[in-house]
Amino acid sequence: MAGVEAKVFPIEVLREFTTRVFRHFGVPEADATEAADVLATADLRGIDSHGVARLWSYHGMLAEGHINPRPKVSLVRSTMSTATVDGDNGLGLVVGPQANRIAMDMAEKAGSGWVSICNTNHFGIAGYYVLRALERGLIGWAMTNSTSLVAPLWGMERMLGTNPIAIAFPGKEEPPIVIDFATSAVAYGKFEIARRKGTAIPTGWGIDSQGRDTTNPDNTINGGCMLPLGSDREHGGHKGYCLGVLVDVLCGVLSGANWGPFAPPFALRQEIPTRSVGKGIGHFFGAMRIDGFIEPDEFKRQVDEYIRVFRATKPAPGTNGPLIPGDPEREAERERRKTGIPLLMPVVEDLRAISRSTGIPFE
Amino acid sequence: MAGVEAKVFPIEVLREFTTRVFRHFGVPEADATEAADVLATADLRGIDSHGVARLWSYHGMLAEGHINPRPKVSLVRSTMSTATVDGDNGLGLVVGPQANRIAMDMAEKAGSGWVSICNTNHFGIAGYYVLRALERGLIGWAMTNSTSLVAPLWGMERMLGTNPIAIAFPGKEEPPIVIDFATSAVAYGKFEIARRKGTAIPTGWGIDSQGRDTTNPDNTINGGCMLPLGSDREHGGHKGYCLGVLVDVLCGVLSGANWGPFAPPFALRQEIPTRSVGKGIGHFFGAMRIDGFIEPDEFKRQVDEYIRVFRATKPAPGTNGPLIPGDPEREAERERRKTGIPLLMPVVEDLRAISRSTGIPFE
Repeated sequence: MAGVEAKVFPIEVLREFTTRVFRHFGVPEADATEAADVLATADLRGIDSHGVARLWSYHGMLAEGHINPRPKVSLVRSTMSTATVDGDNGLGLVVGPQANRIAMDMAEKAGSGWVSICNTNHFGIAGYYVLRALERGLIGWAMTNSTSLVAPLWGMERMLGTNPIAIAFPGKEEPPIVIDFATSAVAYGKFEIARRKGTAIPTGWGIDSQGRDTTNPDNTINGGCMLPLGSDREHGGHKGYCLGVLVDVLCGVLSGANWGPFAPPFALRQEIPTRSVGKGIGHFFGAMRIDGFIEPDEFKRQVDEYIRVFRATKPAPGTNGPLIPGDPEREAERERRKTGIPLLMPVVEDLRAISRSTGIPFE
Repeated sequence: MAGVEAKVFPIEVLREFTTRVFRHFGVPEADATEAADVLATADLRGIDSHGVARLWSYHGMLAEGHINPRPKVSLVRSTMSTATVDGDNGLGLVVGPQANRIAMDMAEKAGSGWVSICNTNHFGIAGYYVLRALERGLIGWAMTNSTSLVAPLWGMERMLGTNPIAIAFPGKEEPPIVIDFATSAVAYGKFEIARRKGTAIPTGWGIDSQGRDTTNPDNTINGGCMLPLGSDREHGGHKGYCLGVLVDVLCGVLSGANWGPFAPPFALRQEIPTRSVGKGIGHFFGAMRIDGFIEPDEFKRQVDEYIRVFRATKPAPGTNGPLIPGDPEREAERERRKTGIPLLMPVVEDLRAISRSTGIPFE
């Protein structure tokens, strides 16, 4: 945050405000609490773009009636270990946790559970869902498709969302391995930060509206495209594109949601796609019982050893050596639980505006 | 193959020779036929590094008694939708297809099936297994860990294999979407090709034995490391590293196989790890019934539409526009079924040497 003006808030203040905002729009108490928990988890774990910074967007969608505050989440179809869920156009922050529980309940009975969800909206950080699975001793998977921003390799149109994948594995004495990443080369927020600071971006992040490499973040933001993980053909951009498609088909096509360029926006300011090919956006959750494969204690001891062996990797020059997936977020959480959440002033201004329009006190 | 001497063989000649070589070492007829089919599929699909070019390695491992030609593949543990399988140190080309069938059988009963396999060996191309799932109307997943070659981001030791991921989705009139890629920035074969041609490699592919970026393929081959997809921190190298870990834990740790730097070699010339933390290497297969989520016909029609929409993406300058995952392999197969498989002369020499040592005629 160096050099950028920020104000610090205790997480409980943000959590309380968020819950009350959702309640204001008719979201039931338990759902509002859970939705606020998803956002608070992002803020605690240092994923600033997905925490209360997004409340302005959710607020707008609820205020305009684009999102159903009281969805009846229903099972469309199921087997012992699979299901499709219709989210009834609820907040993804409400539909997501419910559908994730369906996957986990299924896993406890059948060994694994796999749920594809249509008619839902932006669900926060994918990591939230796999942390819930850890609490139940399960290996959790979470994915979502989203508004298109990313070009397929060799294309120059926005065809895929940043389509994240998360999975987590529990350790015994060591903390869990928590994997959660977008399948684009970098997060959209990095373009916004570069624009705000007036700095150039590296090649490989995005292209301009003519499909050319660019180092100016404005060129990508204004009608250009983000690039998939791998960036170009020589460095495996086709693999990042494949990952984006994998997530999109499991979340969008398999559930009967919109996919690709037709995924609807999560904020009012975003463009509405020209065509609808399904209902809302889509998520995909998986849960697997560890004892469906191996003695859980043995698994956790091996994960501990895995972590220790990888931490002991000889460091590349100029680095402190490899991190374990989940380290940065856990470190952020430890720090932020003590010192609070630093919010950039434009985010604080958004929350103040929400406070004025809803009458819910803030600060 | 331009500029590199090659000899062309009809696929049936290679298939027959391969089958007889496996039979020679005591592999039962049906297993030998299936193992040869895995290699033939790689050769047909243009994945030259994983076809008969590998027969020399399998031959060596069988001749030295490092691989069990008649494994009793057994279920270690199972639930309705999950299982662990012990491959009894068989050829991965034999254990893989059997374990994959267990996952598919389970999916037909329980909606999905997920099988982690220990005590196995190199299984060929991951794509082979998901093509088998397509034949049964299922969505298949396949992964394997392998001998370590890749450094985790910020490390300078070989800690992970190239750990591929495959998944496939059927179309109705369009061909299927077939995703199959290594989680390293590029395939190991690309370093070997650059070395043979005496050309430089781009930065982002590998590091030298001192952990420094290198453009000399020899520096990576001789004691350096390959880099994960994304290459460096700025371009998402941590994401490729996460993918490598995801595959390694599901295949290695969850099954009780070796993982990370302890994965045993698949060829005699490779170094034996200093430590064993499990049995053999590991694979992971998944299978999901489409009708466990959605009407299969509706799914396939949407996949058709998906393919058409992505093919119609405006092409980036200097390209013909995006491919659909699986296009290059399908194109190669169409061509090679007509014209045969071009084998580089060193591969032909290997096959001739196998012929001399086994007495099985070749050419």
